[in-house]
Amino acid sequence: MKFSAMVLFMALWSVLVYDPMAHMVWGKGGLLNAALGGVFPTLDFAGGTVVHVTSGVSALVCALYLGKRLGYPKEAMPPHSVVLSFIGACLLWVGWFGFNAGSALGAGSLASSAFVATHFGAAAAALGWATAEWLWRGKPSVLGAISGAVAGLVAITPAAGFVAPMPALAIGLIAGVLCFFMVAKVKGLFGYDDSLDVFGVHGAGGTIGALLTGVFAAKAVNSIFKDSHGNALPVGLIDGNAHQLLNQLVGIGFAWVLAIVGTLIILKVVDLVVGLRVPTEQEIQGLDLSQHGEEGYNLEV
Amino acid sequence: MKFSAMVLFMALWSVLVYDPMAHMVWGKGGLLNAALGGVFPTLDFAGGTVVHVTSGVSALVCALYLGKRLGYPKEAMPPHSVVLSFIGACLLWVGWFGFNAGSALGAGSLASSAFVATHFGAAAAALGWATAEWLWRGKPSVLGAISGAVAGLVAITPAAGFVAPMPALAIGLIAGVLCFFMVAKVKGLFGYDDSLDVFGVHGAGGTIGALLTGVFAAKAVNSIFKDSHGNALPVGLIDGNAHQLLNQLVGIGFAWVLAIVGTLIILKVVDLVVGLRVPTEQEIQGLDLSQHGEEGYNLEV
Amino acid sequence: MKFSAMVLFMALWSVLVYDPMAHMVWGKGGLLNAALGGVFPTLDFAGGTVVHVTSGVSALVCALYLGKRLGYPKEAMPPHSVVLSFIGACLLWVGWFGFNAGSALGAGSLASSAFVATHFGAAAAALGWATAEWLWRGKPSVLGAISGAVAGLVAITPAAGFVAPMPALAIGLIAGVLCFFMVAKVKGLFGYDDSLDVFGVHGAGGTIGALLTGVFAAKAVNSIFKDSHGNALPVGLIDGNAHQLLNQLVGIGFAWVLAIVGTLIILKVVDLVVGLRVPTEQEIQGLDLSQHGEEGYNLEV
Repeated sequence: MKFSAMVLFMALWSVLVYDPMAHMVWGKGGLLNAALGGVFPTLDFAGGTVVHVTSGVSALVCALYLGKRLGYPKEAMPPHSVVLSFIGACLLWVGWFGFNAGSALGAGSLASSAFVATHFGAAAAALGWATAEWLWRGKPSVLGAISGAVAGLVAITPAAGFVAPMPALAIGLIAGVLCFFMVAKVKGLFGYDDSLDVFGVHGAGGTIGALLTGVFAAKAVNSIFKDSHGNALPVGLIDGNAHQLLNQLVGIGFAWVLAIVGTLIILKVVDLVVGLRVPTEQEIQGLDLSQHGEEGYNLEV
Repeated sequence: MKFSAMVLFMALWSVLVYDPMAHMVWGKGGLLNAALGGVFPTLDFAGGTVVHVTSGVSALVCALYLGKRLGYPKEAMPPHSVVLSFIGACLLWVGWFGFNAGSALGAGSLASSAFVATHFGAAAAALGWATAEWLWRGKPSVLGAISGAVAGLVAITPAAGFVAPMPALAIGLIAGVLCFFMVAKVKGLFGYDDSLDVFGVHGAGGTIGALLTGVFAAKAVNSIFKDSHGNALPVGLIDGNAHQLLNQLVGIGFAWVLAIVGTLIILKVVDLVVGLRVPTEQEIQGLDLSQHGEEGYNLEV
Repeated sequence: MKFSAMVLFMALWSVLVYDPMAHMVWGKGGLLNAALGGVFPTLDFAGGTVVHVTSGVSALVCALYLGKRLGYPKEAMPPHSVVLSFIGACLLWVGWFGFNAGSALGAGSLASSAFVATHFGAAAAALGWATAEWLWRGKPSVLGAISGAVAGLVAITPAAGFVAPMPALAIGLIAGVLCFFMVAKVKGLFGYDDSLDVFGVHGAGGTIGALLTGVFAAKAVNSIFKDSHGNALPVGLIDGNAHQLLNQLVGIGFAWVLAIVGTLIILKVVDLVVGLRVPTEQEIQGLDLSQHGEEGYNLEV
C-alpha cells in the first residue's frame, strides 16, 4: 500500500470504524454498553471487540482487496529477524499490562485481577500454540510461541477484568491452539496473503476471547450486573447467565459487520482518491526505498 | 573522544554544569526557581533547560571543539540499523512518561496531566517532522518520525505539568518542524558534525519548549503563581502573564551561557589532562575495537 | 540440551528446587523465614537465595553434567550481537525495579527505598566490573559493563528492602568486581562451559548479596526484628547484630545444597526419560534448526 494511502486510510478508519464501535461498547447509552444502559449488554473489558475484532477483520478485508504480494505464496517470506520479533513480543506483553490493568481506571483489586488474568492468558496461549506446532509440525518454534503469546493477550483482553486466573488459563490455551490452526491451516485453504497474521491472531483471537468472556465472566471478579436492590447477578454462562453468550455474539456481529462494511467503503474511497497499491517496480524495489527513501540496515560490506 | 576523556568529562560536567543549573531552577531559593523564591521564576517542569538545553548546547560545543569525524561530510554515515533506532525511540517514549509524569512527585491529577501532554507532544512532533520531510524532501522516513518524536518529548519536557493537551499538540508540532530544519538545513550551513543531532534535537527542542512553556502555561493546569490571598495568578502569555516569556528567556540564557562556558573549560582541562581525540589510526580502526576491544556484532560468515 | 529435556527439567526444577526454597524463606513458619517464625531467620527481600543462588548453582551443575559445547574453549564463542545484549540488559534493569520494589507488596516508602537501592547497586556494579576489566585487561567493554549491571542487580536483590543507598553502592561495587573475577579468572581455572555466565553472575552475585545483606541491613530502613515490646532490634552486622551473618550463611548453605542435590537428581531423571544432550550432528547444525526448525535471521544475500 502507498504510504499516502495508508495515512488516509488510518485517519478514516479511526473515525468511521473504531470510534462508533468504541462508543457503542463503552459510551454511556451505547447500544452494546453493559454498565450504562445498552440494549445488548456486551462485556468487553479492554477492547476485544472494539480493538481486535475490528482491526483483525479489517486487515482481512485489506488483504483481500489489495491482493497478494508479488511472489506470494511461491517464495518463502519469513520474518527477517526472529530476534527482533521476540523483543517486540516481550515489549508488547509488558505494555499489555498497562492496556488491560489500566482499563480498570484505578489502581485497585480489579486492576490486579486484570493484570493476573492477562499474564495467565498470554502464558497459556504461548504454550498452547507451541504445543500445537510441536504436535502437528514436529518442532515448536520461537515464532510460534510469541505468536501464541500475542493471540493470548488478544483473547484475554475482553475478559481481563471479568475472569479469575484459572479461566484466564483456559481462554489463553484455547486461543493459542485455535489461532495456530487459523494461521497454519485456514489461511492456506483460503489463500489470502496476511503477512503479519493480523486476522489469524487479532481477528480470530478477539472473536474467541469475546465469546469466552461470555462463558467465564464471574460476579465474584466483577459484579457488573445488579438487580434493583444492588445484589450482584450472575455474569457469564458458568456463573448462571447463559443469555450473556447471545449478547456477546451480538457484540461480535456488530464488530464484524462494521469492520467489513466500513473498511470496504474506506478502501474504495482511498483507492479512488490516491490509489492503494504501489506500482510493480516500486514493490520490487521495496517499500522502504520507494516510499521512505531509507533502508532498515546500513551495514558496511 | 577517548573513553577515559569521556568518563572524566561526564563526571566534571555533571557537577559543574548540570548541578548548578538544577539548583538554580529546582532548588529552594535558586535564582531561577518559580515556586520557592527565585528572582527570575522560570517554568521548567521536568528539565527542558536543566537537562536538554544544557546537554544539547554542550554537545554543540563538543562537536566544534573535537572537530569532524574523518571523512565527514564527504562519506555518507547513516545509522547502521534504523530498526534498532526505532526500538530505542519507542523505549525512550515510554520511559519519558516516567520522567515527565514522575516529576509531579506523586500519582495524582498533575501526573496524569503531564503524562497526557507528553504523549500528545511526542505524537504531534513525530507527525510534524515526518510531514516537513515529506514536503521538503519528497519522502517521509522512519528515522525522521522518530527524530521528531524525540524532539517533541524534549520540547514538552519543560511544559508537561503546565499545559493542557491541545497546547501540548501545538508545542510538539512546532518543535517537530523547527528541529527538522535545524538538522536538515542549519547543520549543513554551519558544517559542524553532530552525529546524533544532539544539538538539533535536544538543544533546539529544549530551547523551543522552554520558550513555548512561557506561552502556553495555564493556571487551570498548575496554579504555581499565587497572590497573597492564595488566589491563582495567570501563568503563561495566553493565560495573561506576558512577562513570563521574559523569565523563560532569562532561564534559557543562563542555561546556554552555563553550558557554553562550563563545557569549554571542562574540555580544555580534560584535553590537557588526558587528551580528547583518539589518534587517527584508532579512529580508522573504530572506537569499539580501539577503546573497548569488542565488536557490536560477531556474525559467522 | 534437547528442548524436550529442557521443558521437563524446568517443570521439575520449579517444583522441587524453587518452591521448597521459596517456602522456607518466605512462607509462614518456613525454616528460614525472618518475619513469620523461622528457626534461622534469613533476610532475602526479593530472591537472592531463593531465585539467584538456586538458579546460578543449578546452572553450574547443569554445565558440569552436560559437558562443554563442541569446540569450547578452543574456538572463541562471543555473543553474536552485543547490541541486542545491551538492549536486553537495559530492559532487565528497568524490569528489576518491578521485581525488587514490587516485593514491598505496596507503593510506599519501603518500595521507594528498594527502588533506589536497586538502581544504586546496579550502577555501582556496572562501574565496578568495567573498572576491574579496565585495570586487568586494559580496556573496559560494554559487555563487561552490562554483565556488571546484572551482577549488581542480583546482589542487591536480597538486600533491596533492608539497606540504605550508600550500602547499596558498596554491595554493587563489591559484587561487580568479584563477579568479574569469577567469570574472567575462576571459570578459566575450573574449565566448565557456562555460556551465559549464570553461575558467575547469578550464583556468585546472589551468594555475595545474601552475605552482604547480613552486613548492611539496617533497622532504620526495615525494622523486621522487634522485641516483645515492639521496639526495633538491630538487623545486620553494622546495625549491631553480628549473629545475622550466621543466619545468612545458613540460608545460603540451604540454597546451595538444595540446588546441587535437587538439580543432580532432576538431571539424572530427565537423562533417563528423554535424554539430555542432542546428538553431535544436531549440535553442529545448531539447536535453532535442529530443535525448532527456524533461524534467528533470514537476510537476503
